[in-house]
Amino acid sequence: MNRRVTLAARPEGEPKESDFALDEEEITKPGPGEVLVRLLWVSVDPYQRGRMSSARSYAKSLELGDVITAQGVGEVVESNASRFGPGDLVLGQLGWQEYAVARGGTLRKLPPGLDPASLALHAVGMTGMTAYFGLFDVGKPLPGDTVVVSGAAGAVGHVVGQLAKLAGCRTVGIAGGPEKMSDLAELYGYDAAIDYKGDDVRAALKDACPQGVDVYFDNVGGEISAAVHPRLNVGARIAICGQVSQYNLPRPTPSFHPGTLIVFRARMEGFLVTDYAHRFDEATARLARWVAGGQIRWREDVTAGLENAPLAFIGMLRGENRGKTLVEVAQR
Amino acid sequence: MNRRVTLAARPEGEPKESDFALDEEEITKPGPGEVLVRLLWVSVDPYQRGRMSSARSYAKSLELGDVITAQGVGEVVESNASRFGPGDLVLGQLGWQEYAVARGGTLRKLPPGLDPASLALHAVGMTGMTAYFGLFDVGKPLPGDTVVVSGAAGAVGHVVGQLAKLAGCRTVGIAGGPEKMSDLAELYGYDAAIDYKGDDVRAALKDACPQGVDVYFDNVGGEISAAVHPRLNVGARIAICGQVSQYNLPRPTPSFHPGTLIVFRARMEGFLVTDYAHRFDEATARLARWVAGGQIRWREDVTAGLENAPLAFIGMLRGENRGKTLVEVAQR
Repeated sequence: MNRRVTLAARPEGEPKESDFALDEEEITKPGPGEVLVRLLWVSVDPYQRGRMSSARSYAKSLELGDVITAQGVGEVVESNASRFGPGDLVLGQLGWQEYAVARGGTLRKLPPGLDPASLALHAVGMTGMTAYFGLFDVGKPLPGDTVVVSGAAGAVGHVVGQLAKLAGCRTVGIAGGPEKMSDLAELYGYDAAIDYKGDDVRAALKDACPQGVDVYFDNVGGEISAAVHPRLNVGARIAICGQVSQYNLPRPTPSFHPGTLIVFRARMEGFLVTDYAHRFDEATARLARWVAGGQIRWREDVTAGLENAPLAFIGMLRGENRGKTLVEVAQR
Repeated sequence: MNRRVTLAARPEGEPKESDFALDEEEITKPGPGEVLVRLLWVSVDPYQRGRMSSARSYAKSLELGDVITAQGVGEVVESNASRFGPGDLVLGQLGWQEYAVARGGTLRKLPPGLDPASLALHAVGMTGMTAYFGLFDVGKPLPGDTVVVSGAAGAVGHVVGQLAKLAGCRTVGIAGGPEKMSDLAELYGYDAAIDYKGDDVRAALKDACPQGVDVYFDNVGGEISAAVHPRLNVGARIAICGQVSQYNLPRPTPSFHPGTLIVFRARMEGFLVTDYAHRFDEATARLARWVAGGQIRWREDVTAGLENAPLAFIGMLRGENRGKTLVEVAQR
């Protein structure tokens, strides 16, 4: 049997466990061109909150009863697609479930030697690439620039900080709580770390950015971002990656005055990693090399058992995760 | 004697006549390298409201007692600068006054044949160039794009709409009142005109932009902009030129949710025409050609008498002007 986590109700505000259902169905047989995958890890990401809402966005909303959208890494059990055979490790949009049937064309084989294979779900996968394209293509940092990252200890943020260091920038990370502060400074090499739960963020930013802010990589929005904006330099770039502070609100609170962009002749730009699909090979090759060489360090926050995915998700939206949130569905 | 309009008090909210003073001083003699100019027209522009405030912005605030910052066109009376002689028509940052002494290096001779010479203060001057750089360099329209302009009948907006038509775009202008509606449609050739004072702006935008919005040239901000943002297309560009709806507020109201930029993978960018000083010759040559050829049509809203500059300014901030607001200080 295949266990699956489905959407039982559209969350209002913060999601509750009762917004999710755990159900069972017979494992489907793969049809022509299809592959049956046994999942090992599934990903837990803020964007999933958007899919649970009926509000119009860049992707279709989930319907009630649908399996929760998620990337997963699994092992091929049975294949009717020529490129895959039993035992292959694959990455795909497979959902919060134990088994998935997918067309071969929607799956990617993991790069050989990727260890652990779960890296394909973060530093060498979607969140790493989100950091890569958002920083380099949208933020366009130059050596010596000050790069501020909100959600700096999160799955995307911790890679952004390290990529910016590789590019010769000064990095300032904003996150919440002493454990994340220690990760920012010691694991990810941020030049300055600001605790939005403990520090006066405005004052701390002033101290941490004596030369102003050239690139702001924004994962959170809201109050934290409002504290960053007045410190922008002329010509600053703001990459809008996420606005996690807003995702549990019935509707987002307008937090930005566009006139700020005139004062600083600044650019604010939103992006989606999926728009860079034609360059995924470029990004993953580089990320894999940097991870293997230790220039990009990472941390996983792994919850065991598919049935715990909703709790892991709720906790991540509260900022309780430390590193990339994953659910281990099965061991190999 | 030289009559001057100076800042008597920092306006709170909407400026009042009593925030300005009219005074007289002896006409200064030009020193070495300086030129004495008799002003013919001075410009009235929304940015002047920012200079009257003590809030930090891209330019220094006026001090109480300072002559109000403004561009002017005048005639050289006496020159100690080799490039200028009596009778030359010049453009410069000369202020709301009847006579000004300026260093020769800060003045530009008007292009020969510019008729009326006041065009150097608008369609072939600062506001025309603001339209030119904001549209072409920030908005980057392609043929077939839908370009929406707020403040569309204003000094910048009416040029934006016509430049966008030259670039092969569909143009939608937003302005207030029946007179401006007629100018948008008949004088400036907008494909659609929306009256924010009379129409349901959201519904009208939906009708006027069946293919969505590719470029939004924003002069006003606030509610009107909030009605445009949901109609953006993927990859849209928002050029932030001004936010005149906010200038009389004690502080700007945050009106924008940056997450919108993710949904549409859109770019919002602020700019200042003065950052393009190295390309002023390029822009004015083209604008002059288009104006002479009738591809760019214009309207002036001229108030006679320096003493009436404050009233003209207050009315312009209320949107009472029709075309470019100027004060005629003297006749040639």
